[in-house]
Amino acid sequence: MLRTDGRNDDVLRDIRITRGYQQWPAGSVLIEFGNTRVLCAASVTEGVPRWRSGSGLGWVTAEYAMLPSATHSRSDRESVKGRIGGRTHEISRLIGRSLRACIDLAALGENTIVIDCDVIQADGGTRTAAITGAYVALADAVTWLGAAGRLADPQPLSCAVSAVSVGVVDGRVRLDLPYEEDSRAEVDMNVVATDAGTLIEVQGTGEGATFARSTLDKMLDLALAGCAELNRAQSEALALPYPGVLPEPKGRKK
Amino acid sequence: MLRTDGRNDDVLRDIRITRGYQQWPAGSVLIEFGNTRVLCAASVTEGVPRWRSGSGLGWVTAEYAMLPSATHSRSDRESVKGRIGGRTHEISRLIGRSLRACIDLAALGENTIVIDCDVIQADGGTRTAAITGAYVALADAVTWLGAAGRLADPQPLSCAVSAVSVGVVDGRVRLDLPYEEDSRAEVDMNVVATDAGTLIEVQGTGEGATFARSTLDKMLDLALAGCAELNRAQSEALALPYPGVLPEPKGRKK
Amino acid sequence: MLRTDGRNDDVLRDIRITRGYQQWPAGSVLIEFGNTRVLCAASVTEGVPRWRSGSGLGWVTAEYAMLPSATHSRSDRESVKGRIGGRTHEISRLIGRSLRACIDLAALGENTIVIDCDVIQADGGTRTAAITGAYVALADAVTWLGAAGRLADPQPLSCAVSAVSVGVVDGRVRLDLPYEEDSRAEVDMNVVATDAGTLIEVQGTGEGATFARSTLDKMLDLALAGCAELNRAQSEALALPYPGVLPEPKGRKK
Amino acid sequence: MLRTDGRNDDVLRDIRITRGYQQWPAGSVLIEFGNTRVLCAASVTEGVPRWRSGSGLGWVTAEYAMLPSATHSRSDRESVKGRIGGRTHEISRLIGRSLRACIDLAALGENTIVIDCDVIQADGGTRTAAITGAYVALADAVTWLGAAGRLADPQPLSCAVSAVSVGVVDGRVRLDLPYEEDSRAEVDMNVVATDAGTLIEVQGTGEGATFARSTLDKMLDLALAGCAELNRAQSEALALPYPGVLPEPKGRKK
Amino acid sequence: MLRTDGRNDDVLRDIRITRGYQQWPAGSVLIEFGNTRVLCAASVTEGVPRWRSGSGLGWVTAEYAMLPSATHSRSDRESVKGRIGGRTHEISRLIGRSLRACIDLAALGENTIVIDCDVIQADGGTRTAAITGAYVALADAVTWLGAAGRLADPQPLSCAVSAVSVGVVDGRVRLDLPYEEDSRAEVDMNVVATDAGTLIEVQGTGEGATFARSTLDKMLDLALAGCAELNRAQSEALALPYPGVLPEPKGRKK
Amino acid sequence: MLRTDGRNDDVLRDIRITRGYQQWPAGSVLIEFGNTRVLCAASVTEGVPRWRSGSGLGWVTAEYAMLPSATHSRSDRESVKGRIGGRTHEISRLIGRSLRACIDLAALGENTIVIDCDVIQADGGTRTAAITGAYVALADAVTWLGAAGRLADPQPLSCAVSAVSVGVVDGRVRLDLPYEEDSRAEVDMNVVATDAGTLIEVQGTGEGATFARSTLDKMLDLALAGCAELNRAQSEALALPYPGVLPEPKGRKK
Repeated sequence: MLRTDGRNDDVLRDIRITRGYQQWPAGSVLIEFGNTRVLCAASVTEGVPRWRSGSGLGWVTAEYAMLPSATHSRSDRESVKGRIGGRTHEISRLIGRSLRACIDLAALGENTIVIDCDVIQADGGTRTAAITGAYVALADAVTWLGAAGRLADPQPLSCAVSAVSVGVVDGRVRLDLPYEEDSRAEVDMNVVATDAGTLIEVQGTGEGATFARSTLDKMLDLALAGCAELNRAQSEALALPYPGVLPEPKGRKK
Repeated sequence: MLRTDGRNDDVLRDIRITRGYQQWPAGSVLIEFGNTRVLCAASVTEGVPRWRSGSGLGWVTAEYAMLPSATHSRSDRESVKGRIGGRTHEISRLIGRSLRACIDLAALGENTIVIDCDVIQADGGTRTAAITGAYVALADAVTWLGAAGRLADPQPLSCAVSAVSVGVVDGRVRLDLPYEEDSRAEVDMNVVATDAGTLIEVQGTGEGATFARSTLDKMLDLALAGCAELNRAQSEALALPYPGVLPEPKGRKK
Repeated sequence: MLRTDGRNDDVLRDIRITRGYQQWPAGSVLIEFGNTRVLCAASVTEGVPRWRSGSGLGWVTAEYAMLPSATHSRSDRESVKGRIGGRTHEISRLIGRSLRACIDLAALGENTIVIDCDVIQADGGTRTAAITGAYVALADAVTWLGAAGRLADPQPLSCAVSAVSVGVVDGRVRLDLPYEEDSRAEVDMNVVATDAGTLIEVQGTGEGATFARSTLDKMLDLALAGCAELNRAQSEALALPYPGVLPEPKGRKK
Repeated sequence: MLRTDGRNDDVLRDIRITRGYQQWPAGSVLIEFGNTRVLCAASVTEGVPRWRSGSGLGWVTAEYAMLPSATHSRSDRESVKGRIGGRTHEISRLIGRSLRACIDLAALGENTIVIDCDVIQADGGTRTAAITGAYVALADAVTWLGAAGRLADPQPLSCAVSAVSVGVVDGRVRLDLPYEEDSRAEVDMNVVATDAGTLIEVQGTGEGATFARSTLDKMLDLALAGCAELNRAQSEALALPYPGVLPEPKGRKK
Repeated sequence: MLRTDGRNDDVLRDIRITRGYQQWPAGSVLIEFGNTRVLCAASVTEGVPRWRSGSGLGWVTAEYAMLPSATHSRSDRESVKGRIGGRTHEISRLIGRSLRACIDLAALGENTIVIDCDVIQADGGTRTAAITGAYVALADAVTWLGAAGRLADPQPLSCAVSAVSVGVVDGRVRLDLPYEEDSRAEVDMNVVATDAGTLIEVQGTGEGATFARSTLDKMLDLALAGCAELNRAQSEALALPYPGVLPEPKGRKK
Repeated sequence: MLRTDGRNDDVLRDIRITRGYQQWPAGSVLIEFGNTRVLCAASVTEGVPRWRSGSGLGWVTAEYAMLPSATHSRSDRESVKGRIGGRTHEISRLIGRSLRACIDLAALGENTIVIDCDVIQADGGTRTAAITGAYVALADAVTWLGAAGRLADPQPLSCAVSAVSVGVVDGRVRLDLPYEEDSRAEVDMNVVATDAGTLIEVQGTGEGATFARSTLDKMLDLALAGCAELNRAQSEALALPYPGVLPEPKGRKK
C-alpha cells in the first residue's frame, strides 16, 4: 500500500540541501524535506555568554521559529504575542542539544555559534529537517572559524548529526511523515543520530494512544536507516567548496 | 558496586504516596521518590476551554512548577521573571500528554481537570514523580466527578500511568536517578508506561555524548520494570477509600 | 455566641510550627494557623543586590505566592499570566518590611536572605501566618550564618516578629479570621508586632464600610494579645536544636 | 521647634483644589498639598466589567501613576519597563477601595467610573493627595451622571472621603509630611477617613523601627483633625457650580 | 562619479519579483532589490477583527519582521526579547497604511488580508521592497478571493502601489540606497506612490543634519521616477497567470 | 470659508509656552497649541548609555506618552497593558531624532538628557506641540549644564527646532489641525524645521487617499511659515531668565 505521495513506508521525501543561501552568516543552508523548507543560519560571535566566560569553552545554541505564512492557516507571530510558546522552546532546546553532542566545545575556543532555524514552509518534520540542515550550517561556520585562525583546535566536530521522524499511520510504521500523515499518526517519534549509527536523542510519543515495545523497535530500524541516508546527503553537500569568501587568518568576527 | 545511596542499579528509591494532602482540590496527592517530593493536585471545573466548547469532549491539562526553595541553591521565581522557561513548558506538556493517553475524553464529558504539579523538594526525577503522582490525583478527581453524577460514562480511565527515569552513570545503566547521579549522567532517559506494559512516551538524550542502540534496550528493560513497580504502589494507594467527602449527585462544581 | 469553628472571639486557631521542612534552605518552616498552611523558606546567598553593594549592610527580602491548588476554587498561576498581581506584590512587600524591622542589617554583613512564603493551603490569614513563620525561618538562617562564621556581629536579631488578623464579623470583633469569616468581615485588620509589644505595621480596612476609632482600639487589644501568644509558640519552636547539619566555620554559601 | 517649611507639627501644607482642569473627563481635579500636585480625572463609561455584568451594580476603580519627571531624580516609565511596580499597584488599590467605601454601587447603576491619579509633581503624600482629590473628581462625575439621567438613584455618595499622612520625625509626631521629612521618618502612617469622623483605612509602618501603641494614638489624633480640615476644603471647592457643560438627560456616554 | 556598485545616481538596483514562493498563502511573493530579499505573504481569513465586525468593510493589515540572520551581524529575535521594537512597529504600520490606500475595503467584503513581510536578507531599502512586494501579494490574494466568489465587488484595487528610498550621500542625491550608502546618508527619504503618479506617503529625515527644500524637490523627482519603474516590474510580474490553484466559487477560507 | 474655530487656513492656534512648570527637572515646559497641552520635561543625568560610553559624546532621547484622561474617551494606560503601542514608539523616536538634529553631542559632553513629553490634554497636533516645547526644555537643560560647568563646549545648540501639522481638510490645505479636523483629514503631514528654514523631518500621509505633488508643495509652504512663527514664540519665551535656581559650577547631577 503506497502512501498519498506515492512513497514506500521506508522511503524519505526528496532531500535538497543548498549551502550559501544568505550572504552574511558564516553558514547558511536551505534544507528541504519534500515541501518542508527550513533556513538554517549559523552566526559566529567572538566570546561566550557571561556564565561561561573564562572557561576556555565555546558555546553552540539554536533558535527555532516558524514564519506566520509557513503553515496551512496563518499562525500568529510570537513576537506580537510577546511570548514564545512551549513547542518553540522545546524544539529550540532539542536542536541545540543535538548539535552540542557532535562538537568539542574546548576545541571551538571562546566563540559562540548561534544557529537560527526559521521554517519557510511547513509540511511535517520541521524539527528534524532543522537539525539536519543545522549540522551543515554548523560545519560551514566551523570552516569559517578555522580559516580565520580562531579555533583552539583544528577539528572540533566529532561526528555528523541528522534527524528524521517516524510514526505509526494507518497501523503501519512509516518514515519521514508529511503533515497529512503526521496530523493523524497514532505514534510519533523523532530520532537524532550520528553518522556512526549511535543515538543522540529519541523522543517517541503515543498520540492519544499507547504503543508496544516491538513497535518502538521497528520505528528505530526505519529511523536509523533514514538518518544514514541523510548523512550521505550532508556529505555530498559538504563535498563542495565553501560557498563564499573565507576570511584571512586573524579575520575579525562576522 | 553499590550506588551512593546504597541501592542496586535496578532498584527504585523509597516511594510514598499520600492522598488527600490538601482539602480543596478533588484530588490532592503528595508523592515522594526518596527526597524528591511533588504535590499533585487535580482541580475540576465545569465546561471546557473555548476552542473545545460544544464538542462533548472533556479536557485534561497539567502545569508543572518548582518552588524557589525546592532546589539546592534557590532558583528564581518564574512569576517574578514574567515568563515561563523552556524546561517548565516542556515538562508541563509532557505530563498533560501522558495523562490524556489514559483517559477517554468523551467519557469525561464537558469537564476540565487541571493537574498542578508543584515540586516541594527536588532531588532528581521530578517530572517522573509528577506523572506518577498526577495519575493518582486524576483517579481521585474522576471518582469525585462520578459521585457528583457528572461523568458522561462511568469509567473514563482506560489504564494506569507511571513514569521513571533511567540513565547511564559511571558506565552503568541505573534506575531512578537522584540529583547526584542525574547531574553527571552520560545518558538520561524518561519513560512513561501503562500498567499494561505499553509505552506512552520515551525520551532519551545523550548529555554531551551519544549512545548505542543496545544501551537504549537495557535502559528500557530497567524502566519498564520500574514502572511496573510504581503501578503497584499506585494500586495500593488507590485501594484505600477516597480521602475526603464525596459530593452528592448533581453536586456543584468544585 | 461561639464562632462556626467553636472558638471564642479572642482565641487563635491551632498553631503548629514545623522547622526543617525542606532539606536545602538554611531555614525551612511549615506554619499552620488551623487549615491555613504556609511554607516559609529562608535561603542564604553571599553578597547583596548591586544597588547595595559595598555598603557593608546585608539584605532581607521576601516573596509571597499561592499554589494554584491552595484556594477553594483553583486560582490561575501568576507565572502563566506573565505578571504578578497587586495583592501578591503588596503582601511580599509587607513581609519583607516586617522582617527588616527586627534585624540589624549591619550585623548581618553582606549576605542576602530571601524568604519564600508559599501558601500550600489557604483558609484566611495567609499573610499573617507567613510573617509569623518567616520569622522562625529567618532565625534558623541566622543561626546557620553564625555557625558558618559569616555574620559581622553575633546577634543581628533585635526582637521576634509575629502577625495576626482581626476583624469585625457579625458586628463582633474577632481574632484570627478563617476564610469563612474573612470573606464577610465588615472591617479587616492585620497587625504585625514584636515580642516587646511594640507595633511594626497596622493595616485596617473597612470593606465597603467605615469603622469607629473605638472599634480600632478593640481590634488592637485582641491583636496584640494574639501576637503575644504567637511569640510564645515561636519561642517554643526555636527552643529545639537547629533541625539539620550546621556548616563548619568558613562554610561556603548555601 | 518648627519644621523646615515653618509649619507647626499639627498643620497641613497649603491645600489647593482646582476643578475642571481638563476638558474631556466628567470630573477633572488638580489637587495640591504644598508642592505635591496630583491630577485626578474621573472618566465615565456605560456598562461594567464583564465579571460584574448584569448585577445591576456599578463599578469604581482607580489607577495611580507618577510622571517620570515628577520626582527629584527622574524615575523610569512603567510602560517602558513593561510592568507596573508593587508600589503603584498598592496605591491604585488603596485609592479604589477608599472611594468605594463612600459610594452606593447599586445607586450608581451599571456605569463604570475610572479615576486616574497622575502625579505631576511629587513632594511626599502623593497617595493621600490623590485620594482627597479623587473624591472631588468622583463627586463631579456623579453630578454629570445625574444630569444625564443615568443614575439608578439620585444620591449615590454616602459621605466624603479624605486622606492625610502622619509620621514620627525627629522623635515628634507630625502631620502631612513633605518628602524631606517622609524620607527620614521613623514611623509613617496614612489615614483615610470620612467627613463623619469614621475610618476607612489605617496603614501605619515602622520604617526600620517599631512604635508604641501610644504613638499610634497620637498619630490618629493628628490625622483625624487633618482629614476634617481637608473635608472642609473639599466642601468649599464643591460649593462652586460644575465647571463645564452638563449633559442633557439621556446624554450619551462621555 | 559612479556608486560603489557601479550604478548611476538615478538607477534602481536589479529588481526581481517571484510569485508563488510558498504554497499555503493566497499570495506569496519573494521580492529582491539587489541583495535585499523580502518574502511577502498575503493570508486570507474570513471575517474581520471584532472592532470592525458588522460594518460590511474588509480589513488589510501588515506585519514586518527581520530574520535574525538577515543582517550583517546577527540581530536578536523580537519573540525572545518579548517585545517588538519601535522600528518594527513603525514599518508594519507604514506598510499597512500604504496598502489600504489602494484598496476599496467595502468592495473587499468582510474578509481580512494579513500581509507578512519577512526580510530574508537585508541590504538597505527593506521597507520599500516590502511595500512593493506586498502589493503584488495583495493582488494575488484579491484574485484568489475573486475566484472563490467572496468579494463584495469584483475589482477592489484602485491603483498599484510601489515604494523606493532616496537619499543624499556624499553630497549627491541618489536612488535606492544599499546598506553601505544608507548607513552614511545625510538625508534619507522613503516615498510611496501610485501608478497614477500620486503620493501615498513621504517620509524624509535629516540624519543628524538638516536639508533644504530644494533638496527635497530633487529627491522627489528621483523617487517618483523610481516608483514608476517599479510599477512596470509589478505589471510584468502580474501579467503571468496566478501561480497556483485557484479555489472554486464558494471555496472555503484559506 | 472660516474653520470651525474661526481661524483662516494659514493661521496657527493660540500658542502658549510656560517655562519652569515643574520644580525638579532642569527644564520643564508646558506648551499649549489651543486646547492641546503637553508637558515637556528635560532631565539631566551624568554619563551616557553603556553602548555610548567612553565616546566623549553625550546623548539626547525622548519619551512621549498620553495621560489616559487626555483624550475624548479615556484611553487605556500602556503601563497596565504591559506594552508600548506602535504610535507611541513612533512619536518618541521622531521627537528624539528631531532634537538630536539641533545639538552637537560632542559639545554636550558625556551627559544624557531625557525629554519626557506627557500629553495632559489632546486636541490634535500633540507630536508637533511636543517637539516645539521639547526644544525649549532642552535649551533650559543646556543652560543648566552650562551653569554647572559640565558642558564640553559652551554652545552645543546649533539651531532652534519647531514643528507643526498641516493637512487637507474639506479639500483645503490647512495649518495646525485640531482633532475635529485631523480626524477627517484626507492628507496629514507633520513638518519639523529649523529657525534657518531648513527641514529636519517631513512626514506626509494620505489617509485612505492619495495626493498630488502640487498639494505637497502647498502644504510645505504653510508648514514652513507656521514653523517660523513657532520659532518666534520660542525665542520670546527663552528671552526671559532661567525659571529657577541655576547650579554652581561643579554642581552635582540633577
